[in-house]
Amino acid sequence: MEYPLPKSFSLAEIVGRLGGELIGDAGIQVRQVATLEKATPDTIAFLANERYLGQLKITRAGAVIVGEQLRASLDMPHIVAANPYAYFARVSALLNPLPAVAAGLHPSAIIHPRAIIGSGVHVGPNVVVEDGAAIAADCRIGAGSYVGAGATIGEGSLLHPNVTVYHGCILGKRAVVHAGAVIGADGFGIAMDEKRWLKVPQIGRVVIGDDVEIGANTTIDRGAIDDTIIEDGVKLDNQIQVAHNVHIGAHTAIAACVGIAGSSRIGRYCRIGGASGIAGHLTIADHVEISAHTLVTKSVREAGTYTGAYPFDTNRNWRRSAASLRNLGELTDRVRLLEQQLQQGKKGKS
Amino acid sequence: MEYPLPKSFSLAEIVGRLGGELIGDAGIQVRQVATLEKATPDTIAFLANERYLGQLKITRAGAVIVGEQLRASLDMPHIVAANPYAYFARVSALLNPLPAVAAGLHPSAIIHPRAIIGSGVHVGPNVVVEDGAAIAADCRIGAGSYVGAGATIGEGSLLHPNVTVYHGCILGKRAVVHAGAVIGADGFGIAMDEKRWLKVPQIGRVVIGDDVEIGANTTIDRGAIDDTIIEDGVKLDNQIQVAHNVHIGAHTAIAACVGIAGSSRIGRYCRIGGASGIAGHLTIADHVEISAHTLVTKSVREAGTYTGAYPFDTNRNWRRSAASLRNLGELTDRVRLLEQQLQQGKKGKS
Amino acid sequence: MEYPLPKSFSLAEIVGRLGGELIGDAGIQVRQVATLEKATPDTIAFLANERYLGQLKITRAGAVIVGEQLRASLDMPHIVAANPYAYFARVSALLNPLPAVAAGLHPSAIIHPRAIIGSGVHVGPNVVVEDGAAIAADCRIGAGSYVGAGATIGEGSLLHPNVTVYHGCILGKRAVVHAGAVIGADGFGIAMDEKRWLKVPQIGRVVIGDDVEIGANTTIDRGAIDDTIIEDGVKLDNQIQVAHNVHIGAHTAIAACVGIAGSSRIGRYCRIGGASGIAGHLTIADHVEISAHTLVTKSVREAGTYTGAYPFDTNRNWRRSAASLRNLGELTDRVRLLEQQLQQGKKGKS
Repeated sequence: MEYPLPKSFSLAEIVGRLGGELIGDAGIQVRQVATLEKATPDTIAFLANERYLGQLKITRAGAVIVGEQLRASLDMPHIVAANPYAYFARVSALLNPLPAVAAGLHPSAIIHPRAIIGSGVHVGPNVVVEDGAAIAADCRIGAGSYVGAGATIGEGSLLHPNVTVYHGCILGKRAVVHAGAVIGADGFGIAMDEKRWLKVPQIGRVVIGDDVEIGANTTIDRGAIDDTIIEDGVKLDNQIQVAHNVHIGAHTAIAACVGIAGSSRIGRYCRIGGASGIAGHLTIADHVEISAHTLVTKSVREAGTYTGAYPFDTNRNWRRSAASLRNLGELTDRVRLLEQQLQQGKKGKS
Repeated sequence: MEYPLPKSFSLAEIVGRLGGELIGDAGIQVRQVATLEKATPDTIAFLANERYLGQLKITRAGAVIVGEQLRASLDMPHIVAANPYAYFARVSALLNPLPAVAAGLHPSAIIHPRAIIGSGVHVGPNVVVEDGAAIAADCRIGAGSYVGAGATIGEGSLLHPNVTVYHGCILGKRAVVHAGAVIGADGFGIAMDEKRWLKVPQIGRVVIGDDVEIGANTTIDRGAIDDTIIEDGVKLDNQIQVAHNVHIGAHTAIAACVGIAGSSRIGRYCRIGGASGIAGHLTIADHVEISAHTLVTKSVREAGTYTGAYPFDTNRNWRRSAASLRNLGELTDRVRLLEQQLQQGKKGKS
Repeated sequence: MEYPLPKSFSLAEIVGRLGGELIGDAGIQVRQVATLEKATPDTIAFLANERYLGQLKITRAGAVIVGEQLRASLDMPHIVAANPYAYFARVSALLNPLPAVAAGLHPSAIIHPRAIIGSGVHVGPNVVVEDGAAIAADCRIGAGSYVGAGATIGEGSLLHPNVTVYHGCILGKRAVVHAGAVIGADGFGIAMDEKRWLKVPQIGRVVIGDDVEIGANTTIDRGAIDDTIIEDGVKLDNQIQVAHNVHIGAHTAIAACVGIAGSSRIGRYCRIGGASGIAGHLTIADHVEISAHTLVTKSVREAGTYTGAYPFDTNRNWRRSAASLRNLGELTDRVRLLEQQLQQGKKGKS
């Protein structure tokens, strides 16, 4: 990859392309995005979180992206956007296009003669593409990645280095898959039989929609019989485990280190916090938010936020509450007894 | 890998090979296994969980595998088996044999002249096998995998692509190792000395028995001094961390995302739920079941089920219980005081 | 790698090189370190934990490393050291030097003509080094590893096989990076816009100091705008997730399976237990210890030990306490009411 020198844009050009309302000198040139704290005059910063209001007063940024509530309250050039963080994402994408990569197959890549490679595809060094696999137009396949027999990678997808896609799995268009991700390994299907585990063949696939991003070292297992399904627009962070036959609804975002057990069905537009778990065979409704470190053990039928992390404390305080917690059932009984005694005492008196 | 067209079997052939009792038309042909829900007439389904009894009435499957309690209660052809899920596993293995792979070393594989490769071995593209490593007969080593100096892979093992086996580690017969697994990296051995961490060399190995399966991106560290041991028939799901000098007893099954800290010893036939943890230097008896998201902080001497996940709730309810939990020690004291006061009140009256 | 036959050292040679005080026969030769339990007469063991005092009486070791409190209390040869575990680490390093590896670039390695490779560097098979990357003197780059465009690997570093370093990332001197680690994948930056997630380009880098060790399958994301920073001497175990813009202070040690969310800042000399989590945008002071399975949800301003794991129990007992926990807020109210009633009862009497 060759990285181009960053090109600069005037604020006028930016609002011309991306909309928003510019207040201030339209001729200011910016070359890069920046945080308010580290901005220099040739950069554009943003404020999406009131926590950083203080930094707005001292930033050296050439311009800043803000929400409606700060319109015209600033001396510096600012762009007013309905959603400053999304606007910032667009500005950053404008200033930081993916470096161009020449189409072509690296001579060290090992591509089966019956694999199908679309136009404009870049296949990096040491990539292996097996029999019957299909890589659609304008994909980039990073060094050392593996695309198994009959697997399909949709148009415009980007596989970073050392990704493994097992046989028969399907990725949609514009997928981004980070290094070390494994798509389509066998689900954990075992049956106990005469004191030994029998392996249950995992004959389903992983089928992934369009515009899905998959983080580094995330694993998505193939289905046991039917397929594991990831719908359009799902965003998975790093080190997530998606078990066999899970179904994740469109536009759900899952933070790092989450594990989803077999056959659970997650709704659309859910947000699942880091290191949470979803037990197997559950259904989670649309628009459910799960807090970090929460284990969901029952289906969730209503949108809302659900939580189940132990509140951390100093070890000294924790020891006390944790010891009491072991006896909480008994404590509850003691309170019930006290209530009865007090009630009887009153009756006795009356 | 070339995938054969699925061959069909008559029900008579199936019970002829696998046992069980057939009730219904022995000439029915099935080509694949299926879920009750999605079955077609050329498939065979199974019922191992009463939760799916309703689907049994409407399935289009050509036949179904059931337990004794449903014998002759169905109009459709059915095979009665003592353990329907295990029987299903055997049927699926019969209908879905691993695709044949020609023996041979891919020309891009880099195999040290002092490595020993058994007969019938398939070594995929870009595999690296170092000095003194030994790969026994009928193994398949997936593309991009690495077998370190002096490592040994037992007969009939299957390493999927991009597996790393460090020097000196030993895998038994019929191992299945999924992509991204790392066997034999250094354990986390550090000693604080004059405000800096010294590395403690990790000179043990990983020694793995027969019939072990290791999931995608699972890591098993080599021993610090003695070896890390995984006994026969252990089944490890994805993204598990096994620290140095852990010993896992035969036929134990561990779900995804579990972490086992250094030198702990897990018994035989244990089942450990997803994302659980075992602290270091503990002993877990045979036949122990650990629920998901449980941290085991003391040795477990008796078989049974152990649990320690925070019960999840709506965020609103959780906030209330979690806040109270911080004061639970104090609450316990208050209840004790109430009990004393009430006791004294009674004495005062009597 | 070729493994040398272990060389033996006399106890006199060991204290000559490493200090400590020898009591007993200085001519005893040892060839390897060992645990007390499995030691043979040609090995040296150590006692750093009183838990193993019983083994000291029956060990067959040729010599043992102990602390001051055991000076001259043993019949066998012993070396007295202020910090026996650190002394043991040094002895083990003396007896187990890294096997020598010849400098040179494996012919299968694919090294961009504009990459810079220092003297004495060993580049293994199938390694890919991209445009503008720099690998300083005496590094070893393991088979199948990937060093992205413009990335820098400091002097004397060791990358094990199948490591991925994304473009522009910087590793300091003497780094040790284990297999499957991914350094510099995109942070999880997404902005919701008109019911779809927009990707926020991740333009920062990962910048890692000297003497850092990174475990197998650990992932460290590049910064969203500014860099993700790992200071000198940080030790990361396996399967850790470090999100974008995290800053980890020098000499902090983190156990396996920990997740640190975006922009959090961890102090120096912290110790974080396995599978813990640090929520985003927090600050953790120096010398903080976090217990295993703890989720830190607020900044920690003072050194000390902090804990938040649910105490595990038999499933039967857990069910009882967990059910009560859901009603703990209500129980607290009931106790308050009892206190009021008792107080009023007393007032009524007086």
